[in-house]
Amino acid sequence: MIDKIEHLGIAVKDLKTASETYEKLLGIKPYKEEKVESEGVTTLFFQTGESKIELLEASHENSPINKFIEKKGEGIHHIAFAVKDIKAEMDRLRSEGFKLLNEEPKKGADNKLICFVHPKDNHGVLIELCQDAE
Amino acid sequence: MIDKIEHLGIAVKDLKTASETYEKLLGIKPYKEEKVESEGVTTLFFQTGESKIELLEASHENSPINKFIEKKGEGIHHIAFAVKDIKAEMDRLRSEGFKLLNEEPKKGADNKLICFVHPKDNHGVLIELCQDAE
Repeated sequence: MIDKIEHLGIAVKDLKTASETYEKLLGIKPYKEEKVESEGVTTLFFQTGESKIELLEASHENSPINKFIEKKGEGIHHIAFAVKDIKAEMDRLRSEGFKLLNEEPKKGADNKLICFVHPKDNHGVLIELCQDAE
Repeated sequence: MIDKIEHLGIAVKDLKTASETYEKLLGIKPYKEEKVESEGVTTLFFQTGESKIELLEASHENSPINKFIEKKGEGIHHIAFAVKDIKAEMDRLRSEGFKLLNEEPKKGADNKLICFVHPKDNHGVLIELCQDAE
C-alpha cells in the first residue's frame, strides 16, 4: 500500500544550471544536496507540499543517469512512492508479478531504504519504493 | 509559488491494461475516468496522498499523447503543480523568462484551469500549472 509520492527524480546534465532553473520555476530554494556514490548520483532536493523534487546529476561516467540522458535526454527519471514496510511491499509486488531491480532493500539518498521496480512492468515508468531508515 | 504536486501524467497506449497494472502496483482503484476532448486525451485518476497519478491515453490519432509515445515510448508525460492563482503564477514565470504554451489559462481535466510550460526551459520536463476552477 502506497502512502504518497515521496519524490520525483529528474535526470539533468548539470546540477548547478538545473538548480537555478528549478529555483525560479518553483519559487523556492533547495534544502539539501547529497552524493549517493553507490547509485552514481549527486542529488539536490526541493520540498513541494508533502513530496520532493530530486534533481539527479551523474557523479561518474558510468552512472545510470548518463545512460538515461544518452537514451532519452534530460527529463523525469523515476517516481518514488513512500511505503511504511518496504519488505512487505516488495513481497506483495513480487507476488503480483512485478520485477524488482534489487532483491533486498538498499540504502538510498535522504536516509531511505529503497527498491526499484523495472520500468517494463509499469508502462515505461521506473518506480522506486522508499521507507524511512531507522 | 507552488503548493504541491497536483498530479503526475503518464502516457500509456491502452488505458485498460495500464489501469490494471497501476491498480496492482499502487494497491488501490482509480477514482475517476474523464475524457478531455480539447486535449485529445482520456484520463484515469488514482489518489496517492495529496497528489494524483493520471494515466493518459490518446483519444484520437493526432493526440499529443500519440506523438509523445512515438518519440519517447510510454512513460511520464508531465508534472502538474497546484497553484492558488494561476494568472499571477503565469505572469511570474513569464517575467522569469519561461515559455508558456498557452497565453491564457485553459480548462483541463478534473475541473482545473491549466497552463503548460515548455519542456525545453525545464531540462526536458513538461510542467503544468493548475488551479481549481470556480
